[in-house]
Amino acid sequence: MATVSLQQDASVLSARLGRAAEAAARADLDALLITPGSDLRYLLGVGGESFERLSALVLPAAGGSAPPVLVLPKLEAPGYAAVPAEQLGVEVTTWVDGQDPHGLVADLLRRDRTPSRVAVADVMPALHALPLRSAVGGEQVLAGPVLRELRMRKDAAEIEQLRAAGAAIDRVHARMGEFLRAGRTEAEVGADIAAAIVEEGHAEAEFVIVGSAANGASPHHAVSDRVIERGDVVVVDIGGPLPSGYNSDCTRTYAVGEPAQPDVRETYAVLQAAQEAAVRAVRPGATAESIDAAAREPIAAAGFGREFIHRTGHGIGLDVHEEPYIVGGNEMPLEPGMAFSVEPGIYQQGRWGARIEDIVLVTEDGVDSVNERPHELVVLAE
Amino acid sequence: MATVSLQQDASVLSARLGRAAEAAARADLDALLITPGSDLRYLLGVGGESFERLSALVLPAAGGSAPPVLVLPKLEAPGYAAVPAEQLGVEVTTWVDGQDPHGLVADLLRRDRTPSRVAVADVMPALHALPLRSAVGGEQVLAGPVLRELRMRKDAAEIEQLRAAGAAIDRVHARMGEFLRAGRTEAEVGADIAAAIVEEGHAEAEFVIVGSAANGASPHHAVSDRVIERGDVVVVDIGGPLPSGYNSDCTRTYAVGEPAQPDVRETYAVLQAAQEAAVRAVRPGATAESIDAAAREPIAAAGFGREFIHRTGHGIGLDVHEEPYIVGGNEMPLEPGMAFSVEPGIYQQGRWGARIEDIVLVTEDGVDSVNERPHELVVLAE
Repeated sequence: MATVSLQQDASVLSARLGRAAEAAARADLDALLITPGSDLRYLLGVGGESFERLSALVLPAAGGSAPPVLVLPKLEAPGYAAVPAEQLGVEVTTWVDGQDPHGLVADLLRRDRTPSRVAVADVMPALHALPLRSAVGGEQVLAGPVLRELRMRKDAAEIEQLRAAGAAIDRVHARMGEFLRAGRTEAEVGADIAAAIVEEGHAEAEFVIVGSAANGASPHHAVSDRVIERGDVVVVDIGGPLPSGYNSDCTRTYAVGEPAQPDVRETYAVLQAAQEAAVRAVRPGATAESIDAAAREPIAAAGFGREFIHRTGHGIGLDVHEEPYIVGGNEMPLEPGMAFSVEPGIYQQGRWGARIEDIVLVTEDGVDSVNERPHELVVLAE
Repeated sequence: MATVSLQQDASVLSARLGRAAEAAARADLDALLITPGSDLRYLLGVGGESFERLSALVLPAAGGSAPPVLVLPKLEAPGYAAVPAEQLGVEVTTWVDGQDPHGLVADLLRRDRTPSRVAVADVMPALHALPLRSAVGGEQVLAGPVLRELRMRKDAAEIEQLRAAGAAIDRVHARMGEFLRAGRTEAEVGADIAAAIVEEGHAEAEFVIVGSAANGASPHHAVSDRVIERGDVVVVDIGGPLPSGYNSDCTRTYAVGEPAQPDVRETYAVLQAAQEAAVRAVRPGATAESIDAAAREPIAAAGFGREFIHRTGHGIGLDVHEEPYIVGGNEMPLEPGMAFSVEPGIYQQGRWGARIEDIVLVTEDGVDSVNERPHELVVLAE
């Protein structure tokens, strides 16, 4: 599939590479080894693709003399033509089938000194991480904790992209009455939604959950051949990346005609209050886990604590799921520029489920949501 | 995204689990740890999906008393409902956000004895491989070398699926005149091909390469906004999985009207002879590298050795790229049931490229191709 370029300004990328190298030095690392994925896209503007052939950015920690090197299989090199390597001071080295790319990376790491601690991208497959550990020696740790410090704090251009993604997925939810009707299967509805996601400006429909009736009680249900019936409650959780790579993710819960289950209205009101309370709790300095607690407490107080079976949210940006995670135990204080979902759910096993999800931004003095559709249970015409 | 079930017979899966456990014991492993991907699909019939939350099959080596355990995040468990766990003797354990899944896996591994050597799936992200290494202790190695011994030798049902995939992609190539015309962009042609790939029976169009003129000289070029012109040579490399998960992958080279470049016909004849010679060399006992050499020698003899910049082929099955790799240095003797691509190419940088690719099966006494479209340069109406 095509490697998609972010069209990022070289000066932005250069600053990111510099900050990553400095963060690596502060973390007592000799270098970061970044394979294709969103970390690579963040640093070079091109995410590349994972193949069994190793592609990796070798980014030395600040303080040494060796430049960053992008190691590529020769036949993948054209996919990285959009990287402004010269402006970034990144050397490009290619290898061909039959050569040992892990040894090549190890040699590059030894230019300044024998490395004692090297970090690998969280997404690096074991297929490369294990041979690199052997070839490089020393300690191997994850690069995620270093890079998330950068990626978690969105700059103005990133926030603009997240707002645009939010507006695009809001437009899809606004059209739900076109798609979601009794007599259609979840899969049929999902196919229409997927097309609308692209029509409204996304590069692709990365996920489409249409969980009707009991299927709505399975949070990661996708779609099925179940025919939607009058009175069903339906969880619709959808999103995908814009061409820039920044993602949308928004859930609304619909009823196809008046809900058939008698407990829907009362339970949904608890959920809505919980979601709104959690969003109101977001401000600089509040901890991630305090937002989780703010969602969880009203749900537990109403007796549904055991029916809220997942964390309250996840960060979002070039990945749909990234730091910060809004979960018990995460004491990270929120900061302006962080972006994450607030998405409590209540799941009545075997009957129905409901979830409300917005992506919110931490601002200088509070919170702002990129999604603006109403939170009420939307009753669609049957 | 949906977890897709292979609908495999439980007896087939049970036999595979048994063979994998025995192969693990022969490799002096205590267990295999298999995260979502094609290895998991091969063993359980469901490939699952990779998330930051750990899902893993803990498969003890044969000889112990502990059963296999499928460790799942509670909210992902419904996606594995198609796994016939009881019939397979696989226990299912779920965990929830806030728990430590890597510690849970480590505890499971210690049921029989302290493990000294555990293998992880090649696709396991470092995000899980590194914490598992710390939690489990001992030596961590790759599971690929164990599982490829099983997956590389296709059974009759798998071969039937690969033949069906080959026939499906042949039908798309047979329709190329509908799509590939002067005045259209590669991206427009590619979108039509992608739709045809699905129409002809694939679950999705996993890759669509339409490399016209100079773009054809970049083997992993996908599509671009370049407008195809009269006289262009166009490399079309396409494929994807059937609903069963087994993949097609077939390349043909087309000319839109008579080729404008004067050296196309003569060079293409060299390529065609090389591809056919390599296929003829396939038989049980021949080494993988001998097939690579059989393709490479005639191309080198004609003076194009430096323009054939990749290996000759790759195995195929539940993954588009898997063992055996048809590459110099791979002394693996071929065996009946192996399936791989034979796809030499000649790339004239900045001008044009050509590649011919069939998927072939090693039979008891030779070779059989799953693709049956002619190998000649196909000159399409402009």
